[in-house]
Amino acid sequence: MNVTVWCEGVLPQSKPDLAAIYPEGMEVAIAEGLRALLPHATIRTATLGDPDSGLSDAVLDDTDVLLWWGHLAHDDVPEDRVAAVHERVLGGMGLIALHSAHFSTIFRRLMGTTCSLGWRNDAGREVIWSVAPTHPIARDIPGHVILPAHETYAEFFDVPRPDDVVFISNHDGGEAFRSGLTFTRGLGRIFYFSPGDESYPIFRNEWILKIIANATNWAHPSSRGAAPTAVHVAPPA
Amino acid sequence: MNVTVWCEGVLPQSKPDLAAIYPEGMEVAIAEGLRALLPHATIRTATLGDPDSGLSDAVLDDTDVLLWWGHLAHDDVPEDRVAAVHERVLGGMGLIALHSAHFSTIFRRLMGTTCSLGWRNDAGREVIWSVAPTHPIARDIPGHVILPAHETYAEFFDVPRPDDVVFISNHDGGEAFRSGLTFTRGLGRIFYFSPGDESYPIFRNEWILKIIANATNWAHPSSRGAAPTAVHVAPPA
Amino acid sequence: MNVTVWCEGVLPQSKPDLAAIYPEGMEVAIAEGLRALLPHATIRTATLGDPDSGLSDAVLDDTDVLLWWGHLAHDDVPEDRVAAVHERVLGGMGLIALHSAHFSTIFRRLMGTTCSLGWRNDAGREVIWSVAPTHPIARDIPGHVILPAHETYAEFFDVPRPDDVVFISNHDGGEAFRSGLTFTRGLGRIFYFSPGDESYPIFRNEWILKIIANATNWAHPSSRGAAPTAVHVAPPA
Amino acid sequence: MNVTVWCEGVLPQSKPDLAAIYPEGMEVAIAEGLRALLPHATIRTATLGDPDSGLSDAVLDDTDVLLWWGHLAHDDVPEDRVAAVHERVLGGMGLIALHSAHFSTIFRRLMGTTCSLGWRNDAGREVIWSVAPTHPIARDIPGHVILPAHETYAEFFDVPRPDDVVFISNHDGGEAFRSGLTFTRGLGRIFYFSPGDESYPIFRNEWILKIIANATNWAHPSSRGAAPTAVHVAPPA
Repeated sequence: MNVTVWCEGVLPQSKPDLAAIYPEGMEVAIAEGLRALLPHATIRTATLGDPDSGLSDAVLDDTDVLLWWGHLAHDDVPEDRVAAVHERVLGGMGLIALHSAHFSTIFRRLMGTTCSLGWRNDAGREVIWSVAPTHPIARDIPGHVILPAHETYAEFFDVPRPDDVVFISNHDGGEAFRSGLTFTRGLGRIFYFSPGDESYPIFRNEWILKIIANATNWAHPSSRGAAPTAVHVAPPA
Repeated sequence: MNVTVWCEGVLPQSKPDLAAIYPEGMEVAIAEGLRALLPHATIRTATLGDPDSGLSDAVLDDTDVLLWWGHLAHDDVPEDRVAAVHERVLGGMGLIALHSAHFSTIFRRLMGTTCSLGWRNDAGREVIWSVAPTHPIARDIPGHVILPAHETYAEFFDVPRPDDVVFISNHDGGEAFRSGLTFTRGLGRIFYFSPGDESYPIFRNEWILKIIANATNWAHPSSRGAAPTAVHVAPPA
Repeated sequence: MNVTVWCEGVLPQSKPDLAAIYPEGMEVAIAEGLRALLPHATIRTATLGDPDSGLSDAVLDDTDVLLWWGHLAHDDVPEDRVAAVHERVLGGMGLIALHSAHFSTIFRRLMGTTCSLGWRNDAGREVIWSVAPTHPIARDIPGHVILPAHETYAEFFDVPRPDDVVFISNHDGGEAFRSGLTFTRGLGRIFYFSPGDESYPIFRNEWILKIIANATNWAHPSSRGAAPTAVHVAPPA
Repeated sequence: MNVTVWCEGVLPQSKPDLAAIYPEGMEVAIAEGLRALLPHATIRTATLGDPDSGLSDAVLDDTDVLLWWGHLAHDDVPEDRVAAVHERVLGGMGLIALHSAHFSTIFRRLMGTTCSLGWRNDAGREVIWSVAPTHPIARDIPGHVILPAHETYAEFFDVPRPDDVVFISNHDGGEAFRSGLTFTRGLGRIFYFSPGDESYPIFRNEWILKIIANATNWAHPSSRGAAPTAVHVAPPA
């Protein structure tokens, strides 16, 4: 299994202290966390600053599951790279969209909706509840996982009805949010997972990493190919 | 539309003060609330103490939508009355299961699961979030509804995957719960709605009543008949 | 309820005899059929040849449910009109995509997938089976409906998992197809219905018209507005 | 993985020639077919004639996935054995219900509906179409599979909305049927698969066996335990 962890790698100039959360880079932190849990996978990182925005055909052709984190630079991903990722997902590549990737061009294109939500960032407590314990993404995850401080996301989250609601979250200000959702598009499997604001060390939490590792395994296609195409058919015989 | 509001009508002897919450009877309170919102419906009440446990064939044959609240006396509903309700739901009668009716025999029989959940009763705040705003049950309901004090229900709620998750709740102790769920069984529509502990005047809350009225409209079948039966078919011609 | 029946209105030059099927125009035939079933609705028609391709802001702002039939001219619908329809659907306008509209730009944009399928056109018999008889779109529709001659559509139909599979079809060459599917996108309800090839008088079939009328009622929003947008929220209080 | 293939093992006295289809016993034929595809699984057989109807606690405690085929003798399975299987499924044991097992007591109990359907037995051709190609049960299965002669099943199939519709079938008399459906109940995964009438050698078809093997892998739980139970919870801390 070849996994690529893509992060835009852009920090807000107004918040220079954020660099201290992931001094090695968020994509490196996620990749290291996954390597410990997925020893047989080859896990690479890529960012917007890499050639072809880190999403060259060569990279994508060699990627079974793509993890995507973006926030400030959604519009800086070139259209042809969005189209290239879209085509691969429809052909079977798994996609895991993390946190503010809900607003990435690729995620919105796969959903067909605005993907908007409510938010505020007051370092509140989030408790993530497992509501589909038989789902492979929930395997070995306890009934609830606590994030002592995180950004708050609130409904209404404008996405199509998911295949499965795997996690829902309680935020201590009173909000609830569907925080772990699966979708199928073409031959590709997609997991949206809301934890991961850049202001908190969420991607060092063992359960968050375990959930993402589970999702990576789940999204790994049995085979990859072209997206489905219309065909003129003969009657079965 | 003929609506029957059935409540077991049994108060715990250990909590005599509960009678003050609904001195007229909980079923009467719900029925009065609905009458104001559904002026064209005929709304009756029934309790375990009525003939045939309030669920005679005559009552059921004249009921398009049955509301069910029970807690202490699930086992006191006779088996043949549970079977009679089951048969009617499969034939098209709507069913709205309120609060601790998650553990009623009829609801468990329709679900096929344990219907268990986590709970504690500390008069915490519950905030109910609308996550399917296009659903008829969410019509004209705001993005969130606050219950200042209510029992806490927590996941994992052991029900089959619902047709729609209409509401999810935040409890101020940190729990999250799928609090408004729809199911189809046979020709019948079912709505489970978790608000309504007997210790709080939940069924006097305007939004709770509005949601239940919406659900009653939604569960009203276009026609009622027998449950589907196996048939020996001829080829279409 | 304001309904607009939009058809591209382009006949293939290679098949001049097709004009005899709907000499008044396909959109007129559909509209007339619906008027008889939806007497309280205002039903208008529009085609690609109308100003703004028949999809001006004025038309869309006055449309609660849009029916869409297209085949040869998907690429002739201007991008800004596709975007305008998309925005309205997310804000609550219902959309009914008929037959080869599976490949329209607007439908593919709402689905996020290729929407491809298998097909051949040998005037075979199609039998449409109702598999969700409680769904409002199946109301008063018999267990199966026969189209003596129609184009054949075959799986795999590359759409996201639908909210509901309402109809599945048997084609007499051996194919099966999910022929009636519902989706929710934003605040809008969408029904895809595969019958309606231009070579057969499908839109004069009483059951097909009844299903489309049911779908129009179902897709009618309780209110229309803007698509959901991200909001900075305050804690519930 | 421990797999038990349970068949009632009762042949209709009126059709003595059926014994020639599976002279070794249907359960033996299925087990042998699976052994070739699941070399690491331990696959046992059981029938109604075995002690405890082949469903003793010892057998069930040692079963990760139970395959069930029954037709004439649904009522001969003792109630306490049905309850024992039910409890195990809710605790995580996988269940694969084959063909006329749609009417078994255990399947109906898990579904909560009548599970009725239309049928006739004219040795017609069935073509099974894969409509969820990313599902593990559809892995390596072609777009359609042909059964030259089989019993006909027809909609409406009265089951709850499935988690996934994996296969739909075309019958050459004109019927369509949802032939491969998944459900989750408690911690258990359930697959209903309609092929397998006793009058045809369906369980010798390589694709049918492959689908059942895929389903067995899919239904295998990561762990097994008790069914969920209601718990008095403390706030997360």
